[in-house]
Amino acid sequence: MDYYKESLKLHEKARGKWEMGIKVPVETVEDLSLAYTPGVAQPCLEIEKDKELAYKYTSRWNTVAIATDGSAALGLGNIGGLAALPIMEGKAVLFKRFADIDAIPICLETQDADEIVETLVNIAPSFGGINLEDISAPRCFEIEKKLQERVDIPVFHDDQHGTAVVVLAAIINSCRLTGKKIENLEIAISGAGAAGTAISKMLLAAGVKDIVVCDSRGILSEDRYDLNDAKAELCSITNSGGISGTLADAVRNRDVFIGVSQPKLLTAEMIKSMKADAAIFAMSNPEPEIMPDMAMEAGARIVGTGRSDFPNQINNLLAFPGIFRGALDARAGCVTEEMKLAAAGAIAYTISDEELTEDNIIPSALDERVEKNVAEAVAAAVVK
Amino acid sequence: MDYYKESLKLHEKARGKWEMGIKVPVETVEDLSLAYTPGVAQPCLEIEKDKELAYKYTSRWNTVAIATDGSAALGLGNIGGLAALPIMEGKAVLFKRFADIDAIPICLETQDADEIVETLVNIAPSFGGINLEDISAPRCFEIEKKLQERVDIPVFHDDQHGTAVVVLAAIINSCRLTGKKIENLEIAISGAGAAGTAISKMLLAAGVKDIVVCDSRGILSEDRYDLNDAKAELCSITNSGGISGTLADAVRNRDVFIGVSQPKLLTAEMIKSMKADAAIFAMSNPEPEIMPDMAMEAGARIVGTGRSDFPNQINNLLAFPGIFRGALDARAGCVTEEMKLAAAGAIAYTISDEELTEDNIIPSALDERVEKNVAEAVAAAVVK
Repeated sequence: MDYYKESLKLHEKARGKWEMGIKVPVETVEDLSLAYTPGVAQPCLEIEKDKELAYKYTSRWNTVAIATDGSAALGLGNIGGLAALPIMEGKAVLFKRFADIDAIPICLETQDADEIVETLVNIAPSFGGINLEDISAPRCFEIEKKLQERVDIPVFHDDQHGTAVVVLAAIINSCRLTGKKIENLEIAISGAGAAGTAISKMLLAAGVKDIVVCDSRGILSEDRYDLNDAKAELCSITNSGGISGTLADAVRNRDVFIGVSQPKLLTAEMIKSMKADAAIFAMSNPEPEIMPDMAMEAGARIVGTGRSDFPNQINNLLAFPGIFRGALDARAGCVTEEMKLAAAGAIAYTISDEELTEDNIIPSALDERVEKNVAEAVAAAVVK
Repeated sequence: MDYYKESLKLHEKARGKWEMGIKVPVETVEDLSLAYTPGVAQPCLEIEKDKELAYKYTSRWNTVAIATDGSAALGLGNIGGLAALPIMEGKAVLFKRFADIDAIPICLETQDADEIVETLVNIAPSFGGINLEDISAPRCFEIEKKLQERVDIPVFHDDQHGTAVVVLAAIINSCRLTGKKIENLEIAISGAGAAGTAISKMLLAAGVKDIVVCDSRGILSEDRYDLNDAKAELCSITNSGGISGTLADAVRNRDVFIGVSQPKLLTAEMIKSMKADAAIFAMSNPEPEIMPDMAMEAGARIVGTGRSDFPNQINNLLAFPGIFRGALDARAGCVTEEMKLAAAGAIAYTISDEELTEDNIIPSALDERVEKNVAEAVAAAVVK
């Protein structure tokens, strides 16, 4: 099927993938007097007295803004907020379908980090959480941090943390299969943007000690003088062995390769230089850093990609619905490291020992068990 | 029925009066590949090339933001954005029920006029129109004007223009009943805030020549030195006779009284001083400027209020759904005077000559014919 052509047809026919649904009766004058004036004055006055009551009397408890400036939309680059609306609507539909969350696309006119923060602070009262989406690095780090400091609802940049959580889940299950210990893994990451940075931090939080990260110019190392602040910080918390060089140098003798970069960067030669039972997660989309058949042929034991037409799809859909469901249910004020670790564990252990195989490292994106498991684990991590 | 108590119960049970509905299939991997990645890239790229296509491939054509800072919420005063959320949700539900428009509550954290404008400009790409709601005068005038200058979608402050349109419709039908001519009417308005100002301008646009406006200190006249800019401007376009004095002076010998002010301001004595076949629209809510029975007893021929439990309810619900439906359908960039005049005429003439009586000056808020008539008239006024 030509997904691009068919998708255009679908979008033209639907003219919007979501619509408003009404949850209260609005047929009679009496109905209107309760849902609207004069009766509606009462919940307003209650909330004015106690802001917490917004969670009791309005949709705030279940509503998430999906905010983007379209600066890093899928693999399309900087297409701007308006052009990213179809993606945000798609995401909204996934939020509803997989977590029964009412999510609203907020496409931004501005790409200025401070203006984005001000704008989202100013509209936050309508929402119980904010999902940042498709915002380019390094701006996304600053926007997420500043915004979370200003609002008391969870802020979550899915391109960073959603991806990181699912990658960690895949790595947990790779260890279950190979018998390797997570704290002994030596990992190479190709890509030092939003996802690469978040994956590195997530893995460190999970106990991994040896991570080397590459950008397009090679390994992030102390002798690099071309690093922006974000990459310099990433360098300072990774590469404990102090190596430098190319991607080939980074991958040599590693247990795991994680690609969030460009198609075809990883060669069969490089995989052959890795340790036994190597795991390859090549998530460049739609074309991975190496095609799965080539990676297997070169000796990899486990291969995952971002694609649904190969085994082991690393799909954010496994993470964000349950993470937001759990955070909203527990009325979390932010999404902590503990909540993300809990989510990764819940995704991984949705697959039983019996189900776990090289081709079933990670649950299917449509596995109905995942969202519930993740939501419960995340909510429990909040209570702690 | 105790509307306040029952409304609180309804709101607690519903926890939000709206929810997200899904318009496309999202069950299979293939479904997701069309509604989301990779297929969704195609409509994004089309919109990036031509912004107009957002109206073809997304929900923008049918989505309205209902934005408030809660500074003038119903009769409750300044309760802030969050506490006004139940009202905005109620309004959203009315938009959907009466015009099939998907409207999103946007409750603002800020009450600074410029910040409100910036915020709404910044989120405008998601929306096909912006309904401003419950924003206090004179800030509402500035916010509406500046915002409309910055965006190419219609901006409409319902408390001003919705009310004005419905009042004009009631006055058109009063003239049909009494045989008076609109251009000869002498009108007194009590209230010089958002609604009073908009009503004055609407009536002038409709051909009325003699309007006197009062605020709480009396008639707006050249000898008043206490007027803010907005009231000074209103004074400059009204009171062509140059009279000054109290509300009693304003009402004497007038054909029509319009109240958008405070309960009990209008006395039987004042009505007795008016012309024959006087029309009284006492819209202070919930308690009108004079109760209908008292007004009739004092000699008024036509009496309307803002309440659903008396005849002739002046209800914005007659106007805003059809105005937005028409504006969205015709892809209007703003709501012009012509569109509002067309809306008022359409509301008025929904009532046939046979149906028109003293107690049926204006259609019921639930009259199914109104929204369609208004939408068609408004859209036609755009095309012109």
